Amino acid sequence: MCELLGMSANTPTDIIFSFTGLMQRSGKTGPNRDGWGIAFYDGKGIRDFRDPDPGCTSEIAELVQKYPIKSETVISHIRQANAGRVCLENTHPFTRELWGRYWTFAHNGQLQGIKSRPLEFYQPVGTTDSEYAFCWLLDQIRAKYPKPPKRRETLWRYIRKVCNELREMGVYNMLLSDGRDLGCYCSTKLCWITRKAPFTTASLKDADVTVDFHQETTPDDIVTVIATQPLTDNETWLTMNAGEMQVFYKGETLAL
Amino acid sequence: MCELLGMSANTPTDIIFSFTGLMQRSGKTGPNRDGWGIAFYDGKGIRDFRDPDPGCTSEIAELVQKYPIKSETVISHIRQANAGRVCLENTHPFTRELWGRYWTFAHNGQLQGIKSRPLEFYQPVGTTDSEYAFCWLLDQIRAKYPKPPKRRETLWRYIRKVCNELREMGVYNMLLSDGRDLGCYCSTKLCWITRKAPFTTASLKDADVTVDFHQETTPDDIVTVIATQPLTDNETWLTMNAGEMQVFYKGETLAL
Repeated sequence: MCELLGMSANTPTDIIFSFTGLMQRSGKTGPNRDGWGIAFYDGKGIRDFRDPDPGCTSEIAELVQKYPIKSETVISHIRQANAGRVCLENTHPFTRELWGRYWTFAHNGQLQGIKSRPLEFYQPVGTTDSEYAFCWLLDQIRAKYPKPPKRRETLWRYIRKVCNELREMGVYNMLLSDGRDLGCYCSTKLCWITRKAPFTTASLKDADVTVDFHQETTPDDIVTVIATQPLTDNETWLTMNAGEMQVFYKGETLAL
Repeated sequence: MCELLGMSANTPTDIIFSFTGLMQRSGKTGPNRDGWGIAFYDGKGIRDFRDPDPGCTSEIAELVQKYPIKSETVISHIRQANAGRVCLENTHPFTRELWGRYWTFAHNGQLQGIKSRPLEFYQPVGTTDSEYAFCWLLDQIRAKYPKPPKRRETLWRYIRKVCNELREMGVYNMLLSDGRDLGCYCSTKLCWITRKAPFTTASLKDADVTVDFHQETTPDDIVTVIATQPLTDNETWLTMNAGEMQVFYKGETLAL
């Protein structure tokens, strides 16, 4: 299975610690060696890095681990290919523009029959069921809301409804963002943790790395990390239920 | 003014030499310090790197200069802001999906009144006239060809026609690619050079760097580099005329 990683924060924050843990699972402590990718929002813009090679040995992943890119919203993914060959265009996250914003999407799971759904505006570039599902999802949103609804809750409730439909086709764990909100849908496996003052020390499960967040933060920081499986072994992560959606804005949950 | 750099090759080739020259012009030998970006196609996929900071001191630009990413089609840009503030979403190149392919675009110039043209499908994320023009151009293509025309020449002739219309609004030097073809439109300033056997030595204008392409290539390689101004001082670059378009496929010109 693939693994997902997301972050939502109220201040530009680097994700080096969590990303380092995730990259171990891309070929070293985990089997997800068929590519990796990460997208960082900076304002409305995006910086992304990706490789169809294992993250644990990728030179570009190494750069991302060394260079503290700060962002309020991040989506990352490591891939174990099942549908679609191993190549750059099949690496997550995928990005498309809607309403003058970049939407970014990563998926863990498999969807039976998704490719028989007709597509209207968006077409996949690669051959994964994931990118197809993303295009179909954006098509639904665009058809329902030619212009963005006034209240973000209205939009995310609709997205949750479409995700429920996708979940019926197989396994659909998803991260989706427009750069402001980070929507997390759980089909089988997704968990999250919010870190805020008083900050403590955390240690990675997959590498001998410990960080004292107290040294790295200010008392007002709120940082939520979402992952397929907990990345640390000394903190309590909240496990999401099947069919549950959480939307984070600046690190805090939105009531839907 | 901004500067453009493009490459079209018949075999995956690294662009470190030319990119190193261009990055000097982003804050060191030239004034284009308001951001830079580069997109490398790999199959139908894209890898891109960008920064709103000067290229000459950017750590990410330094990585790109060290790490030989090989590609058949590359588009790069350094920015001197005039329309639109200095921020990540205003850095070129811009990318959108059309017909299941990623289209990448970079522009040098300014367009009067472009923002009064109505947009249909594509919306800009940033505030530059360039991204607006790209969205409008793709809208025209999409409206004219809901499906891609059978012959690429048909498509590029249509694109040239739309570029002629854009040129009437100001200055419109452009690089545009779908990953296979690289279209280059000259409004005021653009030149190119095709390197093939027998390969010789080239030296950069903007840095004390010389490369012996004979050592770096095979006899079958064909590599065309397009730039706003010649990047080397010991080779003959072909200067394009106002209103001229060249389309390169695997390093060679397409007859339109």
